[in-house]
Amino acid sequence: MTSDIPAVRQALDAAGHPALLIVDSISGLACAPYEHDAWGVDVTVSGSQKGLMLPPGISFNALSPRALEASRTAKLPRAFWAWDEIVEMNKDGYWPYTPNTNLLYGLSESIAMLLAEGLDNVFARHARWAEGVRSAVTAWGLPIQCADANVYSPVLTGVITPVGVDADAVRRLIHQRFDMSLGTGLGKLKGRMFRIGHLGDSNDLTLLATLAGCEMGLKLSGVQLAGSGVQKAMDYFSSHDAPDVKAV
Amino acid sequence: MTSDIPAVRQALDAAGHPALLIVDSISGLACAPYEHDAWGVDVTVSGSQKGLMLPPGISFNALSPRALEASRTAKLPRAFWAWDEIVEMNKDGYWPYTPNTNLLYGLSESIAMLLAEGLDNVFARHARWAEGVRSAVTAWGLPIQCADANVYSPVLTGVITPVGVDADAVRRLIHQRFDMSLGTGLGKLKGRMFRIGHLGDSNDLTLLATLAGCEMGLKLSGVQLAGSGVQKAMDYFSSHDAPDVKAV
Amino acid sequence: MTSDIPAVRQALDAAGHPALLIVDSISGLACAPYEHDAWGVDVTVSGSQKGLMLPPGISFNALSPRALEASRTAKLPRAFWAWDEIVEMNKDGYWPYTPNTNLLYGLSESIAMLLAEGLDNVFARHARWAEGVRSAVTAWGLPIQCADANVYSPVLTGVITPVGVDADAVRRLIHQRFDMSLGTGLGKLKGRMFRIGHLGDSNDLTLLATLAGCEMGLKLSGVQLAGSGVQKAMDYFSSHDAPDVKAV
Amino acid sequence: MTSDIPAVRQALDAAGHPALLIVDSISGLACAPYEHDAWGVDVTVSGSQKGLMLPPGISFNALSPRALEASRTAKLPRAFWAWDEIVEMNKDGYWPYTPNTNLLYGLSESIAMLLAEGLDNVFARHARWAEGVRSAVTAWGLPIQCADANVYSPVLTGVITPVGVDADAVRRLIHQRFDMSLGTGLGKLKGRMFRIGHLGDSNDLTLLATLAGCEMGLKLSGVQLAGSGVQKAMDYFSSHDAPDVKAV
Repeated sequence: MTSDIPAVRQALDAAGHPALLIVDSISGLACAPYEHDAWGVDVTVSGSQKGLMLPPGISFNALSPRALEASRTAKLPRAFWAWDEIVEMNKDGYWPYTPNTNLLYGLSESIAMLLAEGLDNVFARHARWAEGVRSAVTAWGLPIQCADANVYSPVLTGVITPVGVDADAVRRLIHQRFDMSLGTGLGKLKGRMFRIGHLGDSNDLTLLATLAGCEMGLKLSGVQLAGSGVQKAMDYFSSHDAPDVKAV
Repeated sequence: MTSDIPAVRQALDAAGHPALLIVDSISGLACAPYEHDAWGVDVTVSGSQKGLMLPPGISFNALSPRALEASRTAKLPRAFWAWDEIVEMNKDGYWPYTPNTNLLYGLSESIAMLLAEGLDNVFARHARWAEGVRSAVTAWGLPIQCADANVYSPVLTGVITPVGVDADAVRRLIHQRFDMSLGTGLGKLKGRMFRIGHLGDSNDLTLLATLAGCEMGLKLSGVQLAGSGVQKAMDYFSSHDAPDVKAV
Repeated sequence: MTSDIPAVRQALDAAGHPALLIVDSISGLACAPYEHDAWGVDVTVSGSQKGLMLPPGISFNALSPRALEASRTAKLPRAFWAWDEIVEMNKDGYWPYTPNTNLLYGLSESIAMLLAEGLDNVFARHARWAEGVRSAVTAWGLPIQCADANVYSPVLTGVITPVGVDADAVRRLIHQRFDMSLGTGLGKLKGRMFRIGHLGDSNDLTLLATLAGCEMGLKLSGVQLAGSGVQKAMDYFSSHDAPDVKAV
Repeated sequence: MTSDIPAVRQALDAAGHPALLIVDSISGLACAPYEHDAWGVDVTVSGSQKGLMLPPGISFNALSPRALEASRTAKLPRAFWAWDEIVEMNKDGYWPYTPNTNLLYGLSESIAMLLAEGLDNVFARHARWAEGVRSAVTAWGLPIQCADANVYSPVLTGVITPVGVDADAVRRLIHQRFDMSLGTGLGKLKGRMFRIGHLGDSNDLTLLATLAGCEMGLKLSGVQLAGSGVQKAMDYFSSHDAPDVKAV
C-alpha cells in the first residue's frame, strides 16, 4: 500500500513532536512519486533491487539536515552504517569500506534510463500495470490485500487465497510446474496470500505471463475462480495505451 | 514443418542417384530427433541461434566422408567456407580465419546443458510446447501454415491471417503496443502469416505471454477470433505435465 | 602481515581467558592456509572481493558454537547482522532480508574453481607471487612495511616511500599516467606508503605490469631507486616455476 | 606494415587501369588514418575484433559506387555475401540472413567510445604504443619484420627470432609459463617470427606485461638478447606522454 507521507509530516509538525520521520521506500522509489525534501522526510531508506532495476546488493539512505544533527548527539547504538564516516568520505567520492562498485556503475545507467523515459512516464507506466493486475485479481473473485482502494500499491498486489487454501502450497506448485517464484505473505499473513510484483524492467506480456502462472496454479490447487483474470487483464491492457506508446 | 529425411535417403538410394543429401537443420537441431550419420545425410548445416540457445553468430557443417570426397574433385565455385582449409586446421583445434571464440565457449556450455537435461527430455519438451501453441491457434480459428498435421514443426508455428488482414501490419502493431517482435512470412507468404517460435530456453509462461501478445494484437487489428487461444493453451499446459516435472 | 592465530588461541586458553577469538580474514581467505575450526577461532569475517575473486558486495561470518552461545546472552547492541535471524532462515536456504543473489552464484563458481585447482596449489601460487613482488621492492631499495620477514603477507606488499616523498602523490601520478589505481596507506601510514595487491585471479605478467607502473611512477616522482624491481621480478618468475605449471 | 593506398589509387588512375582497388583494413581500421572515400578505395573489408575492440564475429564491407556497378555485371562466382541482397535489405535496417545482433549493439558502443576519445587521439595513442614496443624489440637486438621503417605498422610488431630458434617453440613456452598467447608467423615466415599486437582497448602497462612475457620467454628459450626491451619501453613510455593525458 502507499502511505500519505506529507500527512504524517503535517501531523508531527502540528503536534510539535520532535520524532524523526523515517520512510522505507525500497519498493516504491522510482515507481511512484516520492519527494524526500519537499515532503519533509528525515531519513529515506532504499535499495537497488526494485524500481531501480538492478540486482540486489546496495542500499542507501537520504538524510535531512535534522537527521544528521540528531545523529551527532544520539545515544542510540549504531553499527554497520554510522553516517558520519560515510558522509565524510563521500565528500571526495570515496567510502570508508569497500563499496559494491559494480552496482554503482549499474545504478548510474539505470538512473540515466529512468530520466530518459521521464519520471512522469515511469510513474504512469507502473500505475497502468497495477490497474491491469488488480483487474485480474478482481476477475478471479479473490480479495486484494489492501482494504482501501485509495492506497493501492503501484508496485505490488497481494492476493488473498480462500480460507483453507495454503497460499504457500500454491506458490510451491506454481514454482514447480511453471518455473515462477512468487513472494510469500509475511508475518501474520504467512500462508494466507502471495505477492505479485509489477515494477521496474517489465512489460504487459511479462505481467500476463505472471497472471497466467497464478491462474493455472490456483486452479490446479482446487481454488474456484469467478472468472479469468488473464482475459480481464488482456482486455485492460488492450484498451489502455501505455504512456510511452503515444510518443512512438 | 518436419521432413522425413530417411525416406529421402532411401529414395535416392533406390534410384541409385549420386546426389549428395544436404539438410538445413538450423531451427531443428537440438529440438527434435536428428541423426546425421544414421540417416545417411551428407551435409548438415546448422547455427547457434535456435535450439542451441545462443546469440546468432556461428554456423557449422557436419560432413559425410562422401561429401568430403566429392568436394575434392568438384568444379563448383566455392567461397567463404571451403571445407578443406577448415578440416585441415580443425585437426589441431584451430581455424584458418579468426573464429567467433566467445560463442564457442557458449556452445560448450549449451551442449552441456542439453546433455544434462537429456535429449529425449529436450525433444519431449519442444513437442509439448508446440502442441500447446497449436491448440491456441486452433482456438482462434486461424489456419496453421502446415497443411499436413503429421509433419507439424516442433519449433515454430506459422499463423495464417484472414484474407484482407495484412499480417505484417499485425506484427507491427504487436511490436509497437506490446514490445514483442514476431517473425514475418517469407517469400510468397509475405503479408499472409506470422511466425511463433517455441524453442530453446523458454517455458510455458513465456509462451503464454507470446500468445497473449498475438491474441491482443489480432483483436486490435480487427480480426474476429473464434475463441481465446490463451485460455486454450492454459488448459493444455495445466493438464499436460512437462517431461522434466516428473523428475522433481 | 600474517598472524599466528593458533598461538593466540593457545595464549587465551593458557590464561583461561573467556574472550572470543575473532579473525578478519577478508584478504587472506582462499590465499593462505586458514582453519576456522582446527585453530579454535570463534568468529571469522570474510568477503567476496579478494581471494574469492568476485566483485565486492557480500561478506560472511563463520561462527563457533561458543560464539553462537555467547550471542544469545550478550548485552552488546547489535544491528545489521544479528546472527539469530540469519542462522534460523539459512536452515532452509533463505535469508531474512534480500541477499545479493548474483554474487552467490558467482561464489559457487569461484569455490568450484579454487577446489579444482587444489587449495595447496592456490596457496603456493600466492606465496610465489608475493616472493616475486618483494624481490622487486627490495631491488628498488625501498622498505617493505612489514618489519618481520617471517610474517610477510602472501597477498599484499606495502611499499614505504622515502621521507619527503608523498606516497599519495605518487599514487595519483601513477593513476593519471598509467591507468593503475594502487591502495593507499591507512591510519598513521597515510602518505608514507602504497599497497600492491597480489592475489586472486592474476598471473606473473599482470604483476610485472603492476611493478612496471610503480617503478615508472616512483622515478617520475623523483625517487632514487637502487635498481630495477621489474628486472628482478622477471628473474625471479623465470627461475621459479609456478606450482601449476608442473601439472601441464 | 602500412600501405600507401592513395599512391596505389594514383598509379591505377595514371595507368587508366580499370581494376577495383580493394583494401583489407581488418587490423588497421580505427587505429590509423583511413579514408575509404577520399582515397578512392572501391572495397574495404574490416571486422570487429581489432581496433573496434569487440569479440570476433562480424565483418563488413564498404563499397564504392564503382564496385557496386561492377558487381551487377561481374561473372565472377560469388557466395556468402552477395552484396545485392545485403544492400537491398539494409535500406530498411534488415539483413537477408540472421545477423550477429549482439555484436551490432557492441559496435554501436565501441564507435561511440572512439568518437568520444577523438580519432586523432586514437591514432596518436596507437602510434605511441607502437613506438614503445619497437624500442623494446630494438633493445633486444632482434629485427622487426618490416624492413622499411617508414611503413611500420601502428598496430602490430613482428619480431624475427635468430636463425636456429623455432619461434613457435618460443610462443608455446610463453603460453605455458606465462599464460600469454602470441600470434604466429604466417606463410613463409612460419616458425621465424612471432607477432605482438598493440591496438584497441589496451594501455602502457598491458604492453609492458606483454613485453615482459616475451623477454622472459626468449631468454628461457636460450636467445641472447642485447639488452632489456622492458627497460627500454619503460623509459620510452615514461618520457612520452600519452595523447589523452594532456586533456586530464
